Parts: sequence; structure tokens; C-alpha cells
Amino acid sequence: MTSSYTEEEDSKWVWNEIKAEARKDTESEPALASYLYSTILSHSSLDRSLSFHLGNKLCSSTLLSTLLYDLFLNTFNEDGHLLLSAVADLRAARERDPACLSFSQCLLNYKGFLAIQAHRVAHKLWTQSRRPLALALQSRISDVFAVDIHPGAKLGKGILFDHATGVVVGETAVIGNNVSILHHVTLGGTGKAGGDRHPKIGDGVLIGAGATILGNVKIGAGAKIGAGSVVLIDVPPRATAVGNPARLVEGKEESKLDECPGLSMDHTSNISDWSDYTI
Amino acid sequence: MTSSYTEEEDSKWVWNEIKAEARKDTESEPALASYLYSTILSHSSLDRSLSFHLGNKLCSSTLLSTLLYDLFLNTFNEDGHLLLSAVADLRAARERDPACLSFSQCLLNYKGFLAIQAHRVAHKLWTQSRRPLALALQSRISDVFAVDIHPGAKLGKGILFDHATGVVVGETAVIGNNVSILHHVTLGGTGKAGGDRHPKIGDGVLIGAGATILGNVKIGAGAKIGAGSVVLIDVPPRATAVGNPARLVEGKEESKLDECPGLSMDHTSNISDWSDYTI
Amino acid sequence: MTSSYTEEEDSKWVWNEIKAEARKDTESEPALASYLYSTILSHSSLDRSLSFHLGNKLCSSTLLSTLLYDLFLNTFNEDGHLLLSAVADLRAARERDPACLSFSQCLLNYKGFLAIQAHRVAHKLWTQSRRPLALALQSRISDVFAVDIHPGAKLGKGILFDHATGVVVGETAVIGNNVSILHHVTLGGTGKAGGDRHPKIGDGVLIGAGATILGNVKIGAGAKIGAGSVVLIDVPPRATAVGNPARLVEGKEESKLDECPGLSMDHTSNISDWSDYTI
Amino acid sequence: MTSSYTEEEDSKWVWNEIKAEARKDTESEPALASYLYSTILSHSSLDRSLSFHLGNKLCSSTLLSTLLYDLFLNTFNEDGHLLLSAVADLRAARERDPACLSFSQCLLNYKGFLAIQAHRVAHKLWTQSRRPLALALQSRISDVFAVDIHPGAKLGKGILFDHATGVVVGETAVIGNNVSILHHVTLGGTGKAGGDRHPKIGDGVLIGAGATILGNVKIGAGAKIGAGSVVLIDVPPRATAVGNPARLVEGKEESKLDECPGLSMDHTSNISDWSDYTI
Amino acid sequence: MTSSYTEEEDSKWVWNEIKAEARKDTESEPALASYLYSTILSHSSLDRSLSFHLGNKLCSSTLLSTLLYDLFLNTFNEDGHLLLSAVADLRAARERDPACLSFSQCLLNYKGFLAIQAHRVAHKLWTQSRRPLALALQSRISDVFAVDIHPGAKLGKGILFDHATGVVVGETAVIGNNVSILHHVTLGGTGKAGGDRHPKIGDGVLIGAGATILGNVKIGAGAKIGAGSVVLIDVPPRATAVGNPARLVEGKEESKLDECPGLSMDHTSNISDWSDYTI
Amino acid sequence: MTSSYTEEEDSKWVWNEIKAEARKDTESEPALASYLYSTILSHSSLDRSLSFHLGNKLCSSTLLSTLLYDLFLNTFNEDGHLLLSAVADLRAARERDPACLSFSQCLLNYKGFLAIQAHRVAHKLWTQSRRPLALALQSRISDVFAVDIHPGAKLGKGILFDHATGVVVGETAVIGNNVSILHHVTLGGTGKAGGDRHPKIGDGVLIGAGATILGNVKIGAGAKIGAGSVVLIDVPPRATAVGNPARLVEGKEESKLDECPGLSMDHTSNISDWSDYTI
Repeated sequence: MTSSYTEEEDSKWVWNEIKAEARKDTESEPALASYLYSTILSHSSLDRSLSFHLGNKLCSSTLLSTLLYDLFLNTFNEDGHLLLSAVADLRAARERDPACLSFSQCLLNYKGFLAIQAHRVAHKLWTQSRRPLALALQSRISDVFAVDIHPGAKLGKGILFDHATGVVVGETAVIGNNVSILHHVTLGGTGKAGGDRHPKIGDGVLIGAGATILGNVKIGAGAKIGAGSVVLIDVPPRATAVGNPARLVEGKEESKLDECPGLSMDHTSNISDWSDYTI
Repeated sequence: MTSSYTEEEDSKWVWNEIKAEARKDTESEPALASYLYSTILSHSSLDRSLSFHLGNKLCSSTLLSTLLYDLFLNTFNEDGHLLLSAVADLRAARERDPACLSFSQCLLNYKGFLAIQAHRVAHKLWTQSRRPLALALQSRISDVFAVDIHPGAKLGKGILFDHATGVVVGETAVIGNNVSILHHVTLGGTGKAGGDRHPKIGDGVLIGAGATILGNVKIGAGAKIGAGSVVLIDVPPRATAVGNPARLVEGKEESKLDECPGLSMDHTSNISDWSDYTI
Repeated sequence: MTSSYTEEEDSKWVWNEIKAEARKDTESEPALASYLYSTILSHSSLDRSLSFHLGNKLCSSTLLSTLLYDLFLNTFNEDGHLLLSAVADLRAARERDPACLSFSQCLLNYKGFLAIQAHRVAHKLWTQSRRPLALALQSRISDVFAVDIHPGAKLGKGILFDHATGVVVGETAVIGNNVSILHHVTLGGTGKAGGDRHPKIGDGVLIGAGATILGNVKIGAGAKIGAGSVVLIDVPPRATAVGNPARLVEGKEESKLDECPGLSMDHTSNISDWSDYTI
Repeated sequence: MTSSYTEEEDSKWVWNEIKAEARKDTESEPALASYLYSTILSHSSLDRSLSFHLGNKLCSSTLLSTLLYDLFLNTFNEDGHLLLSAVADLRAARERDPACLSFSQCLLNYKGFLAIQAHRVAHKLWTQSRRPLALALQSRISDVFAVDIHPGAKLGKGILFDHATGVVVGETAVIGNNVSILHHVTLGGTGKAGGDRHPKIGDGVLIGAGATILGNVKIGAGAKIGAGSVVLIDVPPRATAVGNPARLVEGKEESKLDECPGLSMDHTSNISDWSDYTI
Repeated sequence: MTSSYTEEEDSKWVWNEIKAEARKDTESEPALASYLYSTILSHSSLDRSLSFHLGNKLCSSTLLSTLLYDLFLNTFNEDGHLLLSAVADLRAARERDPACLSFSQCLLNYKGFLAIQAHRVAHKLWTQSRRPLALALQSRISDVFAVDIHPGAKLGKGILFDHATGVVVGETAVIGNNVSILHHVTLGGTGKAGGDRHPKIGDGVLIGAGATILGNVKIGAGAKIGAGSVVLIDVPPRATAVGNPARLVEGKEESKLDECPGLSMDHTSNISDWSDYTI
Repeated sequence: MTSSYTEEEDSKWVWNEIKAEARKDTESEPALASYLYSTILSHSSLDRSLSFHLGNKLCSSTLLSTLLYDLFLNTFNEDGHLLLSAVADLRAARERDPACLSFSQCLLNYKGFLAIQAHRVAHKLWTQSRRPLALALQSRISDVFAVDIHPGAKLGKGILFDHATGVVVGETAVIGNNVSILHHVTLGGTGKAGGDRHPKIGDGVLIGAGATILGNVKIGAGAKIGAGSVVLIDVPPRATAVGNPARLVEGKEESKLDECPGLSMDHTSNISDWSDYTI
């Protein structure tokens, strides 16, 4: 989007795209039409559609969908940034995940996307000292999506949790903007002491599948963390860390200044240079 | 089964076994009888039983069980190979998993088995260009079973996903026949480019828990990938790859020609030779 | 608790704490009050509350909540040790997890805690040769919590499964008292042979996120297993094993005799000494 | 429909009308579109739509929608007259009830119509000696629609149960073609003796709201029974019976030969002649 | 049953009959087996079966089945007369309703029977001053069965509510033993004054369909009230009242002393004598 | 309420009463507390509480509670008179029904009250030409409450439908203010002609149980219609009509000018004068 284009206008444009996609799918696949109408086409706005979808996904016999729908809708209305962040996340999936064919596919099907949006609401409740409710939401997100984000964790926008199953994010973790995180990634603590004890992930970072980052360490902007790495140390901006225990990839200049791994999703550029590894 | 025995006959034999097992359990455990009748004993064929069970497992408040039941049953009827593959998968679990005591246990309880059967239907829809429906199914499978298989992925038969939680299989991945894959295994891509970008797994391969295989690499027939390995390179047939980054196990002859790791599930034969490792 | 204080008295004290916490949360958060009353405050005892909560969490359209509620309640009544173990697990979460603010938070929200309590019931059924029912429960626990514990596995008490998603525990595994296990941990077998084939975890052991322990190996009391480790060998008491393949941390005395890692959750003490690793 | 027009062709025409109506409503009322797609537009035929709708209406936590859907669909397929009778009933509502604006309104909303169609299936089961299942269906129809028709009762086609709440029809009752019955009507027995003990209602009869007809009496073709009447005697063809106890309306010629009250729904023609009564 | 046969023994005999019937139906109708196991065959006693069935029938999204199951079971355990009364009601249906083929049919399918049993529990709560809960139960019974019995009303045993839809029984009504009441019967009050304002129905009374009895009037033992009657006056024992307004049938001796209409369900004996009426 | 007291103030006062009642019941009956919090105490206003309760009561597997909740809440917000009418109806039940102990009892438990409030929303939709949605609501109200009110019917306020089961109100019926209608009452049409064809009920009318009023007749203000009456003629203001067919009660002065039967619920004042009848 160009700078003369506001986020609110973009949000409307994306919502219109979503509706157009859903309308097209309704025509080609009547078996899915009921689902598409109930989740998307019957709603007057993206926040209503998202609240409905999350309410129905996260409800249980003891936490009713109407209660959750109300909670989501009210919180989205209260803080407009939540929806703008959701739109940025939709764009992130669309741009970075080659398997993502449309915005509506992400809105409906991506458990990572849905877990993040529900977390944003839980985080809002956490900052308002509504902790028991925030923790109940966290629990439902973990049950339903197998994504466990403590409501205290702070997330930027333009976040992609790809596949998402098994992601764990601790209470004092911070995730910057335009970060891409694969499944089974842990941003964990290092013991039973309280306080600031979880990783701080800079803007544009890319974290490969199964990576485990523990403790109050800093992963600098634009860094890459290889799949399956176990990281206990700070990683400088634009550096690449791989292995268990993770080490910085030696003999390699930093990634180009005009490249952002969280955006490029470049898992392969180091392979030719560095034999048998990936990030 | 002998060669004079057709797959269709075997399918009927397995279904009769399943019913006999369920009948026996009904007698010994009245608390489970209602469940066994509704899922198995009230059905006239395996495809109906499986469609019913999958429909009830994968339904949600916005995707009704009756719709899914219909979809599964119609697709099984349309393509008889789906059911034969399911039977081969039942046999795989029964033969390779020492904790699998009966066919009915696998049919009812194994999320890996159920995820694969639902995936086969999603894949069929994908090949018929019914993509939105295929993707909705993928999403439900990922929510309910924590198994995320892109509907584009091609699976052989006689597949065992043991424990299965956290398995991720990308769009252009191919899995051969008689492959055994443990939980938390990723067959992933290497970036945001589209095209053919996921692993090709040969027949009879065994992939240990938590292994991550990334990119369009070939894992040759009968190879073994060690638990927790991160594999970015081709692995020759019958070779063993371990470690993060994975390397081929040196100073070892290839596995015997008459042995298939995907069938033998032999995680241990290299341990005495190769100190402290496993696959 | 002092030695003059019986487990039964402690169990009542904890239940009273839980009710007091729930009452306080009810007042501060009316949106959650219905949930708190149905799960906690309307019940006359902890076993009823827990049976209700598990019954509602684990039920499906073919395994009704009333059936499961009855099953849990009857089994808790039959064997009083199950509830005492649950209380010890509640204390474990409260003491070792800095994110655990109250007993009720653990009782309501911790899938690891809930999976363990449901497993204890499944294990009881297993020992009574009610195997089909035990296996059906295992399957529901794996679907709902993404925690897969074979009903044959023996667990001590004071166990913490932190985050818990993706934990897999095999049939002949044994876990001692006061053990802490992070998410994505596997206590697995090594092949398709039956018999005693899974790890034996000693008292007070701490196992980091994503660790994979395979085969009938012994992890001695008070040992630590680093995050992401792949362990195929015995680990002596109070030793620390890290890496893939795991090796014992050299040049380090064993952890102090008066320290128990499973209790201290000390992931960090070795970092300064041992550069870039953690457990 | 003209005589050159077969019932099967008419059935298809009505189904096409229903789909056209649903499509129109979908456009004007997005809030209802999901419902219209799931119940009508996603189905390839009227019997599927009706089986789906009845299965979802009549299911309970112990009689699952998938089981009922299967049962309805199989029975409709087994006996094609059931669906043709349903079409005749749709036409009956459309022609006789001034509040009925469309076929789809009747199909979706009229509990009398739905109760009759479910009864036809129950009756079919009854004639096949599948009595426990037929009686279970009767019970669900009575719970959900407050319409209690014994599965032994024989119904013609072109039947309208207007409003329908409280209708009771006994085991040996027979209802002819083109009969219209208002709510709270009883076709009951007269004691605890078995045998043929319920009313026989001729073709084209109209029975007013709250009328009670008891015993093995004959209501002749084209007769009218006034609202609130209690009828214990035979009523001749084309006669009118009113009152408690019912008497034939005196000083009145029979209704015109070319008029059928069950079709004309003429509740008023006798009022001017007969002061203060109605049928 | 003979006098040497206790009610408790009879209760066990009836429960054994019910199980035998259900077992037989399970064999002949696999489609119903799941239902029969969950409602009857998986339970160890009639009170458990009945509590389960009522809990599942009467539950809603805000009143969970587990809560109701617990409430019913505890109340049945607290007061053994409730179950003995239920057994007497089962016998009443079996003996008086020619359409009742078995005890299990009544237990599973008769909304009148189920409404009465749930009412007995509500009445017990009412007498314990647990009024809000009793009134909530009344509301659920009225929603689900269309039978509205104020929890204050006192019912004897051996009661049959045949068809039952639309029955209304007021707060201060009393119904004796062995009474048979058809559908749409009202035992109502006469205004907005409180106090003792509803009918008192003697033992062995038979009340025909749609009869309305209003005010604190006495219907003497063994009396019959004709279908559709409106009764505002006392009716002497063994008398017959018919019509709107009801009058006693003249020129008729009272019913024979050895006959009890509530038991004989004799709707027809007066017809030959009394022209065109019924009861 | 005094004239200086606005309806809005009264509405708030009633809502505060309801909350106080629910709070009191929560304390005395923990088993009901979850229900009371979810339906009343967790809501910030009466319209939210009512929308939640109706949404959960009227939802089905194809019409989700979240959709209905949204529909009710939006319609209440759009037209403030709907809520004020609901408050008047709550007062009507409280003042006229001696069995009504509190406002919350009526709000939670009275199907007549709930059916009327849902009808008001359906009627609003009808006047906005959203007919398919209005008719779908009518159908759900008829299924769930056995109260069938055509969405075209116009209702005043201060209406009591006591017991309510079986009430049928036709499309062109009009009901004035402060009317009381017992169960099984029909305000029906007289044939298959369209147009203005249903009764017009004046202010303050009282209609007894089971009365059937047919055709475009006028029941004058303050009139009484006896239980079980069949009325086809106009009834003058303050007159009393009884019987089948109904006749005006002769030899009786009209009811006193300062008395309103719909308010006094006086079913009995004519009995002493008029022998054996009631209204």
C-alpha cells in the first residue's frame, strides 16, 4: 500500500477482498457456502466476522460462544489497533506463505492467525488487569489451536505463525513487527524465577521450525534462527544462528541490509555457501 | 496376505475383524458399548463407519457432521482406492506399532490414522479443483488432530503416523508406500517461493520423532532419519541420517537389502556400533 | 506442609483455597463467573469439580460428558490416591511455574495438569484390564490436549507438564515423583518389538522443551536433560545431559546434593560455566 | 398440474422452485443465507435436503444427526412414494394455507409438514417390524414438534397439519388424501383395549382446531368437523359436525358435491346460516 | 404383584425386564443399539439410567447435562420413594396404554412419564425450599416436553399422562394414586389470588383429552371426566362429568364399585347409554 | 408506578431488581449460580441478558446462537419500545400470576414471556420486509416453546401468556394492551382466503384456557372469554362469552367499569351467579 493510503482504508479494502473471495467460493462450492455465509458473508465488518469465527472456534460447553463473541467484539471496538494488526497479519500470510492463496483462506483456516488475534484480545484484557479471563482465553487457545501464548506477551504486527502447532510464547516475551515464526517454536523461560525472563525478538526476524529460544535473550532485527536450533545467547541483528546449541554462522557476512528474512522467508540462501544447513 | 487374495477381499476381512473386536469389547465394557455401536457396529461397511467417525470428529458448529459425513461417504464411494489405502494403513499400525492391539483400536483412537484418511479425501478434492473445501478440511484436521497436511501432498499407502501430534507436511511433499513417521516430524519448504519445494520420501523410509526435513530433497527408499535430525540434503536409499545438521552415519554399511526400516521400525540397530545415537 | 499435616488435610486446604480464589475472581470478573460456578463453586469437593471439568473437556458427540463424569467420579472415589496425586500436581505447578498465580488457574487452564489427571484414571482402568476404555480415554486426551500418554505408563506425583503440548509418553515408561517435563518431550520406544522399551525417569528430574528420550534408558534422580536433546543413553543421578546426540556435560561437578532440578526448575545455573547452553 | 405431467416431473419442478426461492432469500437476507445453504442449496435433491433438515431437527445427544440423516435418506431411497407424498403435502400447504408464501417456507418452517414426513419414515419402519426404532422416532417427533403420531397410523397424501402443535394420532387411525387438520386435534382411542380403536378420516375432510375424535368412528369423505368439537359418532360424507358433544348440523344440505372442505379450507360458509358457529 | 412381594423387589424385577428388553432390541436393531446402551444397558441401576436420560433430555447450553444428571441422581438417592413411584408409573403405562409394548418403551419414549419423574425431583426441591432450582426444572420440562407442572403440585403414584403434550398442573393441585390423564388437560386456578386454588383429583380418576378443571374443586375417587369438558364444580366419587360446562351424566348409576376408571381406561361404557358422548 | 416516573427509569429499576433477585438465588443455590451468571449477572443491561437467553433458547445446529444473539441485540437497540414492552410484560406476570414470585423467574422460565419477546423481534423484521428471517424465527419459537405467533400479528404491551403451550395467533390478529391469555388459546382464521381474517382483541381482555376465537371478530375491551369456548362472533366490551358455541352470559350486568379482567384475572366472579361455569 502506498503512504497516501491509510490503514483504515486498507482494512476496508482487505475486507472487501475477503467478501469477494468468499462469494466466488460460494458459487463454485455449494457444500461450503453455508460455512462461508455464516463466517464471512453474513457479517457487516471484519471485526464481526472475526469475532464470530473465534467465538465459535474457542467456545466450549462451559464458555459459551455468545459470551466469547461479545467479548471479542467489544474488545475490537474498544481498541481499533487490534483489527489493524489483524489486517497486517492477513497481509503477512498472503505475502510470505506460498501456500496462502487468498485472505479468506487465512482468516478461516490458519490456526496461527486465529491464535494471534485471540491472543491480542487476551493481552488487552491482561493489561486491564482482567487476568483470570485472559488466562481462560489462553487456555482455550492452547486447547483448540495447540498454540500457547501467555497473555502477558507483547506482539507486534505483520506476524506470521506458519502451521503454528506447538508454538509456545512466555509471559515476558516480546515479538517485533514483521516476524515469521514456524511451528513448534518455543520462546521460553529459564527457570522458576519470575521477572523478565523470556526472549525479545526484533523486527523482521525469521525463526525456523522447532527452534527453542530460552531466557531473556535478544534476537536482533533481521536475524535468522535455523530450524531445530536451541538458542540461549543473544543473536546480533541480521545474523544467522543455527544448531543445538546454536552458534552464529561463521565466515558469512550479515544478510544484505535491504533484506528482511521475516519478510523474504529466505530459508535457503546460505545453503550453497554453508554446505548442509538451513534456517 | 497371499497374492491370490485380493485387496477387496482383504478389506472385507479386516472389516469383519473390526466388528468382531468391537463386539468383544462391547461385552466386556458396557460403558463403551454405546460408542462402539455408534462408530462401528451400527454400520454396514468400513467406509460408512469411517465416514461417520471422521464426520463426528472433524465437525464444528459451522461445519456440521451431516455435511462432512456425506462428503466423506461420497468421496469414498467415488474412488475405491481410498478405502483400500485405509486398510493398508490399518495393517501398518497393527504390524509396526507394538502398542496397537487391534484394528478397531487404530480405527477409533489413532489420530495419525484418522488424519491420513481425512487427508486422502481432501487430496481427492484438491485434484478435482475443489480447493476451498480441501483447505477447510485441512484446517479442521489441524485443529482437531494437530496434524497439518496440505491437501496437495501425495501419500502412498501403508503409512503409519505414530502418535502424530505436530506432524506438518507441505504442499508438494510426496510420501511413498510403507513409510513410518513419528510425531513432530516436518516435511517443510525452504522459503516463500512457490513451485516444487518439499521433500520426497521414498518407500519404506522411517523418520524419527521431531525430525525436520526441509526443501525439495530426496530421502531414498529404505532410508532412516534419526529423531531430532534437521535434514537439508538428499539421503541415499538405505542410508541413515542423524543430527542437527544431519549427516550420514559414517563407517556403516547400508542397511541390509532385505530390511525395510519403515516396516521393521528398527530404531536401535545402530546404537551399539554408533555409541550414543538413535534414529 | 509440615509433617504433622496429613495429605487429606492438605487436600481439603487446597480445595478451600481454590474455592476462595474462584470466589474472588467471580467478584472481579462477572463474565467468568458462570464458568467458575459451573466448574468449581457449584461442587462440594475437588474430585467432583475435577470430574465435571474433565468430563466436559474430554467429551465428544459419541462419548458423552455424563458418561465421562461418572467414570471419573467413580474412579476417584475408588482410589483415593488419585486425588492426593492431583493435589501434589497442583502444588507442583504453583511452586515451580512462575506464571502460575493460583491453584484454580492450574485446575482450570493447565492442559498438562488435566491430561495427567485423566491419564491417572486411564491408568487405573488399564490395571483393571479395562483396556478398550483406557485407550479411548488416551485418544480423547491426545485429541483435546495434544498430550499422548499411554495408559500403561506409570506416573509418580508432584508432576508438572509445563505447556504440555506435544508430550508423548510410551507404554512402559515410568516417571518418578517431583518430575518437571516441558512441552514437546518424548519418552519413546526404539522399534516395533514389544516388552519393556521406554525410559525410566527418576525422582526430581527436569526435562527441557523438545527433548527426546528413547528406549529403556534410566535417567537418574535429580538429573537434567537439556532442551532439544536426543537421549539414548542412561544419565546418572544429578548429571546433566545436553545436545543431539546428548552427551553429559563435562568439567562440571554434579548438581549440589541439596538441590532437585525438578523442583528448582533451574535451567540457567550451567550457562555461565558452559557458554552457550541451557537445560 | 395437468394429467400429462408425472408426479416425478412435478417433484423435480417443486424442488427447482424451492431452490429458486432459497436463492432469492439468500440475496435479500444474508443473515439467513448460511441456513438456506445448509438446509437447501447445498443439496442435490429434495430427499437429501429433507433428510438433512429432519436429521438436524430431530437429533439429540443420544440420537446423533448423522444416524438420523442416514436413516431418513435410506428410507426415502427405498420407497419413492414417501417423497412424492412429501411433495403433495408441500402443495397442500401452499394451496390451502393463506399464510404460506412459498414451498421453501413450508419445507423449512412448518412443524406439521416436518412431523408428517418423519412419521412416514417411522411408519415405513413400523411396517418392516423395526418397531423400537419407529417408536424412538415417534418420541423425538413428539418432543421436538409436539406432534404425536403413532408409527402404526396410516396417512394419505396431500395432508396439511396447520400449526400442528398438540396433534395426537393413534395407532390404528387412518387419514385419507387431501385432509386438513388444525392444531390440538386428537384422533384417539376409547380405552385400554387393543385392536382397531381409532378414527378413520375420509378423503378431503377438514378438522377444526381442538377437535377431539375418539374411537373407531368413520368421518366420511368431504366432511367438516368444527373447532372444539368432541366427536364419538360416525359423520356421513360431506356432513358437518359441531359441538361438545358433536351433533350434525341440521337444516343444512350437504356441502356442494363439487367442493372439498379439506381443500377449500372453508371454515365460514355455514356461519351466516348457522348463526354463531364455525368449523 | 402379590403382597409378599416388596416394592424394592418389584423395582429390581422391572429394571431387569427393561434391560432384557433393551438387549433384545439391540440385537434386532443395530441402529438403535448405541442409544440403548447409552441410556439403559451401560447403567448399573434404574435410577442411574433415568438420571442419565433425563439429564440429556432436559439439559440446555446453560444448564449442562452433567449438572442435571448429578441433581437427579442425588435426589433419587436421597429419597427412595421417588424411584418406587417411577416404577409404579412404568407399570401404569404398561397396564393401561394398549400402545405400550414394553417398560423400556415407556422409560425411553413417553414424555408424560419423563415429565412426571422430573417433576417429582422438582417437587422434592420445592419442599426443601430450593425454589429457584425447582422452577428452573419446571421451565425445562415445559420447554422440552410441553408439560407444565408447578413444582408445588403433589402427585401420587401409578400415574399415567398419556401423550401428555399440553398438560398443565397448578401449584396447589393434588393428584391421587392410579390416576390417568390424557393430553391437553388443565388442572388450573381461577384467578390471581394466591392460596389453595387448584383441583384435587382423587384416586383412580380418569380425565379425558382436553378437559379443563379449574379452581379448588374435588374430583372424587373413581370419577370420570369426559374429553373436552370444562369442570368448575365438585364431581362426586365414581360419577361421570361431561360437557362444556360440565354436568354430571344423569340417569346413570355410578360406575360399578369394583371398577376404577383410572385403571380400566374405560372411555366407552357410557356411549351406548348416553348417545353421542364419551369420556 | 407514578406518572412522574418514566418508563426508562422503570426499566432500569426492574433490571436492578432482577439482578438483586439473581444475586440472592446465587447465594442460596450454588447449583444454579452458573446459570444465573450466564443469563443475568454477567450482562450489563436487560436487553443483553434477554438477547443472550433467547439466542441460547432458540438456536439450533443450523441457526447458531451467536447469529440470533446478534439479531436480538441489534433489534432491541434499533427500537427501544421493544424493551419497554418486555418490561411491561414482566410486570404483567408479576402482578397477575400468583405463581410468579419474582421478575427473574419470569425472565428465565416463562415460555410465554420469552415467546412474546422473540415475536416482537420477528414482528419488527416483518414490518421491515425481512420476511424469511421473521418466519424462521416464528418456526423456532413454535418448535421450542410450542407457541405459534405469526410475525404479522400485532401485540400491545403488558401481555401475559400464562403457561403458553399451544397458543396460536394468526397473521392479522391484533392484541391490545394488558391482555391475559391462557394456554391452548387460538386466535385463528376462518378459511383459505387471505386478507384481514383474524380476531382483534381489545385492551384488558382475559381469555381462558383452550378458548378458540376464529375469524375477524372483535373482542371488546375488558371482555372475558371462558375456558374452552369457541367464539365466532363479536363480543362487546366488558361482556363475558362462554361455551361451545360461545354465547354471551345472559342476565348479568357487564363487569364493573372500574375492573379490568385482563388485570384482575378474575376467573371466578361469575361462578356463584352462573352456576357451573368459569372463564
